[in-house]
Formats: sequence, C-alpha cells, structure tokens
Amino acid sequence: MKNSQITIKDIARALDISPSTVSRALKNHPDISQETKDAVKKYAREYNYRPNAMAMNLRMSKSNTIGVIVPEIIHYFFSSILSGIEQVANKEGFNVIICQSSENYEKEVRNVDALISARVSGILASLSKNTSTYGHFQEIVDHNIPLVFFDRICIGISTDRVVVDDYAGAFAAVEYLIQTGCKKIAFYTSPLHLEISKNRRNGYLDALHKYGLPVDESLIRVCDTREEAIIITPEILDRPDRPDGFFAINDHCASGILYAAKLAKLHVPQDISICGFSDGELAKACDPMLTTVEQHGYEMGISAAELLISKIKGETQGKYTNKIIKTNLIIRGTTR
Amino acid sequence: MKNSQITIKDIARALDISPSTVSRALKNHPDISQETKDAVKKYAREYNYRPNAMAMNLRMSKSNTIGVIVPEIIHYFFSSILSGIEQVANKEGFNVIICQSSENYEKEVRNVDALISARVSGILASLSKNTSTYGHFQEIVDHNIPLVFFDRICIGISTDRVVVDDYAGAFAAVEYLIQTGCKKIAFYTSPLHLEISKNRRNGYLDALHKYGLPVDESLIRVCDTREEAIIITPEILDRPDRPDGFFAINDHCASGILYAAKLAKLHVPQDISICGFSDGELAKACDPMLTTVEQHGYEMGISAAELLISKIKGETQGKYTNKIIKTNLIIRGTTR
Repeated sequence: MKNSQITIKDIARALDISPSTVSRALKNHPDISQETKDAVKKYAREYNYRPNAMAMNLRMSKSNTIGVIVPEIIHYFFSSILSGIEQVANKEGFNVIICQSSENYEKEVRNVDALISARVSGILASLSKNTSTYGHFQEIVDHNIPLVFFDRICIGISTDRVVVDDYAGAFAAVEYLIQTGCKKIAFYTSPLHLEISKNRRNGYLDALHKYGLPVDESLIRVCDTREEAIIITPEILDRPDRPDGFFAINDHCASGILYAAKLAKLHVPQDISICGFSDGELAKACDPMLTTVEQHGYEMGISAAELLISKIKGETQGKYTNKIIKTNLIIRGTTR
Repeated sequence: MKNSQITIKDIARALDISPSTVSRALKNHPDISQETKDAVKKYAREYNYRPNAMAMNLRMSKSNTIGVIVPEIIHYFFSSILSGIEQVANKEGFNVIICQSSENYEKEVRNVDALISARVSGILASLSKNTSTYGHFQEIVDHNIPLVFFDRICIGISTDRVVVDDYAGAFAAVEYLIQTGCKKIAFYTSPLHLEISKNRRNGYLDALHKYGLPVDESLIRVCDTREEAIIITPEILDRPDRPDGFFAINDHCASGILYAAKLAKLHVPQDISICGFSDGELAKACDPMLTTVEQHGYEMGISAAELLISKIKGETQGKYTNKIIKTNLIIRGTTR
C-alpha cells in the first residue's frame, strides 16, 4: 500500500501557479507572498509532500547532517546540551544524529566510524570517561570533517572547544557556603583524573585558602551518585567534628546527602548546608529545594553547534575558538 | 599528524600467529584460547587497531546500524528506553544512532529521510505528539527496512510493536488510592488525543466505577508538567469539596502537586494522597518519596531492540508481535 508521492509539479498544477513559485514558497523565499506560502504549505502538508532527500543530498554532496557523540543521554546535563544543539541545527537546516559512547572507549571508536561512514557534515563530541588515546578523533580531522569538542574536551587536537567554567562555579559555591557561616566543608567529587573534577577541586581548595580554612583530606570523597551519597554520608555525619557544609559534584549526589541528613534528624540548612551542581528538575523536587550551580547545558549546546556550523560553512577556517560558559549560583533552601 | 593504522597482518606478525587467528580472536571465536584473545586485544588496543568500517559495510552491504526516532531525549522514560536499546544492539554488534523529533511532525519526516539515506539496517520509532499522517513510516516499510514502534505506536502499519500496559497501570494506581481511603480523586493527564492518555483515563474511570465512586469531570485536567501543576493545583485545593487523592500522568506533574499541597499547609499523605507515573530519580528526590507506577523503560528498549534485530536477521519474516510491558505500583510515602 505504497503512498504515491506528490511532486512540486503536482502542487503547482493544483494551485495554478508555477513550479518555481512552489519551490520558493516551500523555502520561505522573501519574494513570495505570505498568502501563497500558506496555501502551498497547507497543500503540501495535506498531500504529504516531501522533498526528495536523496536528490537533495547529492546536490549538496554531503549529508547535511551533524553527528553528536555523548557519554550518556540519561544525564540531564547532556540531554539539555542536545536540546541546544538541535535548536541551532534545525534553524540552520541540519539534521542531528546522536550516538552514545556509554563511557566506553571502544564504543566511542565505533561511533566515530559510523559517523564518518554516514558522511556527516560535522561532528560534536564529548569524551567518554575511559578515553585516553585520541587516534579516532584525529581521523575525523584527517577526513576534513569539522569537529568541535564540548564539556569533556581533548587538548591534543586542534579544534574549537566549549567548556563550562568549572573552577569559577565551584569557587563561588564554596565561597557562598563560607560567607553564610560554614567552617568545615566536605567535597564529594567524580574520579579525580577527569578535568571537571580537577577544576572543581581547585575551586573548592582556593575558596578554603582565601578564607583561611584548613583542608581536611578526609572530607574530600569520590562519590557522584545519589546511592553512594546515601551510603557514605551517615558515617561523616556521625563524626564528632561533623562538617557543617557539603559541596557536591552534581545534584543527584546532593539529593543523597539531603536524604541522609534528614535520616540523621539534622535540619537543613540550620545544622548543615548543602550545595549541588547542575540544576535541573531534580534540584527543584528536593525539599528544601537545592542551592546549586547552574551550568547552562542548553547554552553550551547552542555555542557548540554555532561553532561547528561556522566551520562547516568555511567561515572560520584555520581559526579555533575556546569558548567558556559561565555558571550561576542558584541560591535556594539548602543553604543558610 | 595522521596515525598510521595497523592491520590484522601487523598484529599477526607481531604476535607470531596467523592473520585468521587474529581475526577470530577479535571476534571472540570459541575456537581461540582466552590467552590468545587477551594478547591480541591488548596489542590491538595499544596500537589503536580498528577494523576498516567501510570495508565491513561493503561486505555486509548494509550499515549495521540501527536508527532510533524518539520524541524527546530529555525525558527520563525515553532515555532509559535508549539505554535498553543500546544494551541489546551492542551485544549483537549493531551501532545505534538516535534522532529526536522534538514532538514535531516535519522534523520526524526529516529524521526518517536521514535514516533511510544513511542506509540503516532497521528503525525503532516512537511517534511525536503532532504526527497524524504516516506516509513517512510507510516509506520505511516500502524500502524493506525493518521497523518496530515502541510506546507511541502507529496502528495503520504492519510492524512489531512494544507498548506499556497503561490501562492496567492506571487502574492499579487508582484502585490503591481508593483502597487506602481516597473518595474523591483528581486525574491530571496529557492531551487526550494521545493513546497513553486515553488508556490511563480508562483505567482511572474503570477503577472509580468498580468501587462505585462518581466521576467528577471538573477533576480531570489536562496538565503534564511540574510548572502547570504548581499553577492549577491551588484552586483545586481551595475548593470546599477538595479531592483527597491525585493521580498524575507523570512524576514531574506529581512533584508539582506535592509542592502546591505543602504551600497550602496540607499534609501528604494524611490530608491528600498523590500517585505519579514513571519512576526515576525525581520520584526518590521528593519528600515524602513519590508513590508511582514504574513503567520499565529499560525493559521496553530491550524488547523493541530484540524484535527489530530478529526482523533484520530474517528470523520472524511476515510475523508481527505486539508486546505489552507490565507496570508495577511502587508504594512510597505520598499515599496512605
């Protein structure tokens, strides 16, 4: 039961206008009246008109598609980056196809192969946690396919990059905890070989130094999920020298600390303050709502896609931008 | 600075074994010892060996890639479905590329074009909210590309389908509210033209009927986000005949009802009970934690990918399965 496809000529005949008028109306050409555009689009939609994708691709000799490689879509931060990418790509007439590396180096290599084979016009990538060699990304460059890294970047390859200002975000969060009375602040972090962990740890340490607070290494813990936070926090809250503030690497982890604090019959923020990092719906669902560092995933996606499309269009050949997205501290109920 | 690629022959020479042993070791062939496999993989990884994707594709005359079309990745339910799909696809040696329709019909059509052009081996799709004609999906079938729908399905095209048992999930949730003492239950729903809304509404209505509770149409409201729930709930809580139970179409919406109830100084669950639908980290971050219907997105992804791969392999030609994923009621703190 194949639907027979209508063509531009069919639309022209039905509406008694020229095929070139139909074609320009479908492309929103300024010479065509709004009335004609509306009539053409209405007819095209009713009769399920679709441009011949194959023919368009041949004409452009490229797929007009942007490929994106992300570690895990299930994290709100990455899915909000993807929303920003789609926003720009669609406005500029590009399709977006997305591959997950699932934090796995081998899979990331296969993703690169698949995107090169699919003849994408450009690639946006954020490294998996397990990637430490970069030959597959060099291959993208060797194929003359524009490449932009975002969030988890690769230093060794010349490309545009977009990163969050993790250092400043962490510094501001810890400074605020100190300014509102915290004297002993624990830091829960992702594994320390990651750039984001290093940068946020440096922000945490520098804020302590600035205010003359001592560093207690036993309060810096590798923990980045809600489940782990629920497991490790009771012991820390039980210490005679209990911390009065917690800075967590993400909101999932902060929500676990909040849960553990309530279980221990502590009041938040009177007894302990908690600050997260990310800001999504999870932060608002907590009670009290989480104070957190907003890292603007959507804006990161917008910037990364804009840089890539400039490269695809050849507007910024040989020039590489290192864009830094500023964070905001969102003050809510888990801090004094 | 192009990395010169090593070949299977290079590995064979270096380890003093035959190229066919190397090839089979890389494919985990059972005839090859674990020791040899380990040595080959270690060497391949160290020297950044990668199979020639182009050559593999030509040999298979297909891309060995599965395309997925989802409405919005940012929803936990869809991203957990994607995790299930990746799990099965990777085990079976398929890459996965993902396209978002962003709940937009035109974009969904472009996604289908892009996936057909990319010569994917099969397509998994869930309809956008605005899709009401299906010519683009018929085209997939006409191209002899296996197609499986999940969650938001298309009835008119012969394919395998995987759906959640929305009716039974809603019935069980509302029955539980009634059994724990609720006599007047509001229902917040997505737009009613969607199959999931219809099915959950029927479950809600049938549970009321079974227990002889009257239906109050003014308590059935189109509302499926946290923000909307925060806006519309105060007026409902202010009514002299205030409902004592709420059944929400998703957890975002339920978390908004909880927030509004606390603002109105009502106790949950003593004054009102709330039940959501989905079950992700958001449900656990609420205080009290949400009672909700777990809809098993991960299992849905597993089933959909298994059905598709069976079709790709030609194992189930001409036979179509309609798989129904059962839900579970997860009882937590927002119900009595």
